[in-house]
Amino acid sequence: MSVEAEILETLNYTPVQRMRHSAAHVMAEAVQQIFPDAKFAIGPAIEDGFYYDFDLPRPLTPEDLPDIEQRMAQIVAGKYPFLRDRWPREKALEYFQAKGQLYKVELIENLTDDEVGIYQQNNFLDLCRGPHVENTGQVGPFKLMKIAGAYWRGDEKRQMLQRIYGTAWFTQEELAQYQWRLEEAAKRDHRKLGRELKLFVMNENLPAGVPMFLPNGEMLRHQMEQYVRETQERYGYQHVWTSNLGRVRLYKTSKHWYNYRENMFPVMMGEQEQSEDDAYILKPMNCPHHITLFKTQAHSYREMPVRYAEFATLYRYEKTGTLSGLARVRSLTQDDAHVFLRPDQIQEEFNRAIDLTLEVFKTYGLTDYWISLSLRDPNKKEEYTGSDEIWDRAEKTLRDAVENKGIKCTEMIGEAAFYGPKTDFMVKDALGRDWQCATVQLDFIQPENFELEYIGEDGQAHRPVIIHRAVTGSTERFMAMLIEHFAGAFPVWLAPVQATVIPISDRHIEYAEKVLAQLKTAGIRSEVDVRGERMNAKVRDAQMQKIPYMLVVGDKEAAADAVSVRLRTNENQGARPLSEFIEHISGIISSKSLEL
Amino acid sequence: MSVEAEILETLNYTPVQRMRHSAAHVMAEAVQQIFPDAKFAIGPAIEDGFYYDFDLPRPLTPEDLPDIEQRMAQIVAGKYPFLRDRWPREKALEYFQAKGQLYKVELIENLTDDEVGIYQQNNFLDLCRGPHVENTGQVGPFKLMKIAGAYWRGDEKRQMLQRIYGTAWFTQEELAQYQWRLEEAAKRDHRKLGRELKLFVMNENLPAGVPMFLPNGEMLRHQMEQYVRETQERYGYQHVWTSNLGRVRLYKTSKHWYNYRENMFPVMMGEQEQSEDDAYILKPMNCPHHITLFKTQAHSYREMPVRYAEFATLYRYEKTGTLSGLARVRSLTQDDAHVFLRPDQIQEEFNRAIDLTLEVFKTYGLTDYWISLSLRDPNKKEEYTGSDEIWDRAEKTLRDAVENKGIKCTEMIGEAAFYGPKTDFMVKDALGRDWQCATVQLDFIQPENFELEYIGEDGQAHRPVIIHRAVTGSTERFMAMLIEHFAGAFPVWLAPVQATVIPISDRHIEYAEKVLAQLKTAGIRSEVDVRGERMNAKVRDAQMQKIPYMLVVGDKEAAADAVSVRLRTNENQGARPLSEFIEHISGIISSKSLEL
Repeated sequence: MSVEAEILETLNYTPVQRMRHSAAHVMAEAVQQIFPDAKFAIGPAIEDGFYYDFDLPRPLTPEDLPDIEQRMAQIVAGKYPFLRDRWPREKALEYFQAKGQLYKVELIENLTDDEVGIYQQNNFLDLCRGPHVENTGQVGPFKLMKIAGAYWRGDEKRQMLQRIYGTAWFTQEELAQYQWRLEEAAKRDHRKLGRELKLFVMNENLPAGVPMFLPNGEMLRHQMEQYVRETQERYGYQHVWTSNLGRVRLYKTSKHWYNYRENMFPVMMGEQEQSEDDAYILKPMNCPHHITLFKTQAHSYREMPVRYAEFATLYRYEKTGTLSGLARVRSLTQDDAHVFLRPDQIQEEFNRAIDLTLEVFKTYGLTDYWISLSLRDPNKKEEYTGSDEIWDRAEKTLRDAVENKGIKCTEMIGEAAFYGPKTDFMVKDALGRDWQCATVQLDFIQPENFELEYIGEDGQAHRPVIIHRAVTGSTERFMAMLIEHFAGAFPVWLAPVQATVIPISDRHIEYAEKVLAQLKTAGIRSEVDVRGERMNAKVRDAQMQKIPYMLVVGDKEAAADAVSVRLRTNENQGARPLSEFIEHISGIISSKSLEL
Repeated sequence: MSVEAEILETLNYTPVQRMRHSAAHVMAEAVQQIFPDAKFAIGPAIEDGFYYDFDLPRPLTPEDLPDIEQRMAQIVAGKYPFLRDRWPREKALEYFQAKGQLYKVELIENLTDDEVGIYQQNNFLDLCRGPHVENTGQVGPFKLMKIAGAYWRGDEKRQMLQRIYGTAWFTQEELAQYQWRLEEAAKRDHRKLGRELKLFVMNENLPAGVPMFLPNGEMLRHQMEQYVRETQERYGYQHVWTSNLGRVRLYKTSKHWYNYRENMFPVMMGEQEQSEDDAYILKPMNCPHHITLFKTQAHSYREMPVRYAEFATLYRYEKTGTLSGLARVRSLTQDDAHVFLRPDQIQEEFNRAIDLTLEVFKTYGLTDYWISLSLRDPNKKEEYTGSDEIWDRAEKTLRDAVENKGIKCTEMIGEAAFYGPKTDFMVKDALGRDWQCATVQLDFIQPENFELEYIGEDGQAHRPVIIHRAVTGSTERFMAMLIEHFAGAFPVWLAPVQATVIPISDRHIEYAEKVLAQLKTAGIRSEVDVRGERMNAKVRDAQMQKIPYMLVVGDKEAAADAVSVRLRTNENQGARPLSEFIEHISGIISSKSLEL
């Protein structure tokens, strides 16, 4: 977003954003008190808070923040009114030039209006569109969070500024809750839990952003993918396998070569290839492959829709700076499907894709979600393939279907793929954060690019429509969300290890192994902790590993064919017959219950 | 093999090879009768037959073969003795030079012996080490198979010769059997059945040698891999996931970069990478990845062996000329595992790998196999990494283990991997052809390259040993073998579609759908054939698709909650209660029975 746009956007501020933006001005005044020669850049409200960028005579340190906070508190206590004014452009230019505020001067020079907005509170005057709260006393409980570097206008060739981030809320309770959420998020960080639970690792022997999964993580992946696979089969999807490689010519036909090249890995030009068209490239998406596969067979109207699904690992050459654990990777395994259908089947098939998605969300206990409906930017039609008529039709179809389903929806202009509009499912996790998961996209363009056909009831060739669809999105990002959503305490059916048998002393190992054998026969992923540690240490370690059930066995249990059941929540359920426990856990697993 | 080596190898001919080599001489004489100016190259015995390469004044056509066969029959009927002689090198050179036999001259020039072998039967004299049968009457029933082009000495820069292939056997019955096997092999050709059964396709949009799997083929893959996965879990293997990409530096550490480079795909050097070491490359094998993963964690002697398994698709840059359907591909999905173990565990772990392999073979009904034990060529030690002591120890361990298991074994000098000796399981299919499947390899070298360690009982760091192991080899090649072994009629548990319901007329579709629903609830992969075809046509099509069970339903079946069961063998089992059929097929599937 350009800095001018950021200034403009203040006009649309919600009440809390308005208050946070005012907090930014209060922070700027506090900084001005400490550094009278400070030069000010911009200070917008952002999610959960605000920031302001400064050009200062010395680097800030975390020790500066309490001082700034104290000064802010005084300004808030002063209840100084935010005074709004409109100055002619020239007057503003002169004023800020005289003050040496070169960033403000540059901002004004880039504005085309005759007048500019000015706000002043107490001793701080700023170029600003507003709006603001009435007086500084209305700035709610706040906290400065961190200092960061930020290039002026986000341009690494320009001045490096110092940015202070802060948060502000209407009530002390909201602030406390926010701070708790931050701490909780840090505890749940999937990169941290990924290490502790031995799920995945990054390593310099692989490209950045390409994780390796340890046995626990692979089991998690496998369970996740098996579940979606079985569900897809029930919904009439067929699975296919189309490799990780395509030739350049394939992506020229699909137009990705022209529209998506920068996100693709480098081309492999081998000595056996004759031309660029023949060269190989890692597939960044399945569509061209599924379409190629569809085209190798003749199709009749009777068999439509043809639904090809694949758990293929896609490779995208993201910038290393954007990578983040499993949430943003370069190797992503989409639970991807492409449905080839007759135009008269669009509405029903779109609904089927949504039903499948919601069923999967429900299983994971994800009940809070909304749809982002990505549409074409009508002012940049040249960035999209296909005629106005096709786009209008596609966008209307999606909008109507979402409306009929009654799902909360936000329209995003300019966010469509180049080949068609799309709906993305945004899921809220346990901390209320949005994760982009499922996507359903309509595509009238690729069937044209590839000249796809099916034979209609009239014996003539007709062009099918394509629905692109993913349920959990990518296994990697969905796993990142699941780790953070469940704080690593996965539902039993997903847990890499579902039960651990803990012999009280070495002489109980024999019975523990007997219990293990029965658990394994029942298909329960289980192990015996034979380490020379004390029982309590083993229980604690199992709880750290978030293993759902700890089965402690000693003399009493061995005599009664029983196990003493401890949960990872630390609840002690006491001794139960082994057969009863196996029946219980088997029911929990087969129903994919979220309970223990 | 050099042509000189081919001449030398005749010395080791078995009786049948000796007879076939004599047949080659008989064929050469027949060709000499037709083309008195023919120039002769070489004519060895090969598997199932023989060939001879000729330089002739005109191209042969298939119409020439009956004439040559007739002349051969006359020579055989003449019972001319094969007369053996030894000529001084110079005499032989003069003789063949005078006859214009430039290929023979070149062969003699390349021999270092003072004397050369000469054989003559009837009017044909040839440079030859022998041995031969006593007279031409001992050449058994033969048949000329085809004409092909072949470069002199296999060098495409030299003369293109004409090669005639023939087959010869001791008895007419053996010849007939061989011809039947050839016809049967053509019928079973997995490339042909792959198309007909809609299993896989090749397409110019993907690299040569990289197949795509249609829904039927993907289901077959999935069942095969799931079965090995479950079996591996039972044998204590853990599955991991390590991506398709590594950095060049990884393969430098593993030494593949220096020993295997020519089989690796081109390097991907992106703008975000700094050096060749950072560049990416498709992984041609899992070892370096599994070793890297092992090294990210601390390991104690207690948890050894650590067994990492992965169904990863590997990419190998094979020459396009060597590719053949699924049998020789560039993308192969190995059921690969690497076991990290203490030296004292080698024998037991090697046996465990063999046991697992034999259990899987048994399930597939593959009961005829032998082991190829690949050893280092002691004359080319520079091609292998590691000391004499390490190699001797590794080779002895494998040899002893195979001997103890009592499996038929052939030692192959010079066929070892550069990092250690290996055993390959060669499996005979229904037509008696060998397929290379499982492999178990011992490796003392990579643990050194990567400086692997585990903490021993003494609290000190020790170096583990690695066992590389694959059960079916690659999913692709094993599938090629299964297709040909079963002629597409897969065991029920593997069959992509296990049962098809065939309504006799349109008014039975409703009951057919009811049957389908019950089959699906029981987890049986099934479908209803609702096409407007006649019942018999549907049965025939299902048999062509090798669907194990056809369930024909009409008025009688609908009234009795029954199905009339037809097998793909065309056996008609008559009407049976649906519940009884479901119980039957469920038992067949869960026991992985080879019966119907």
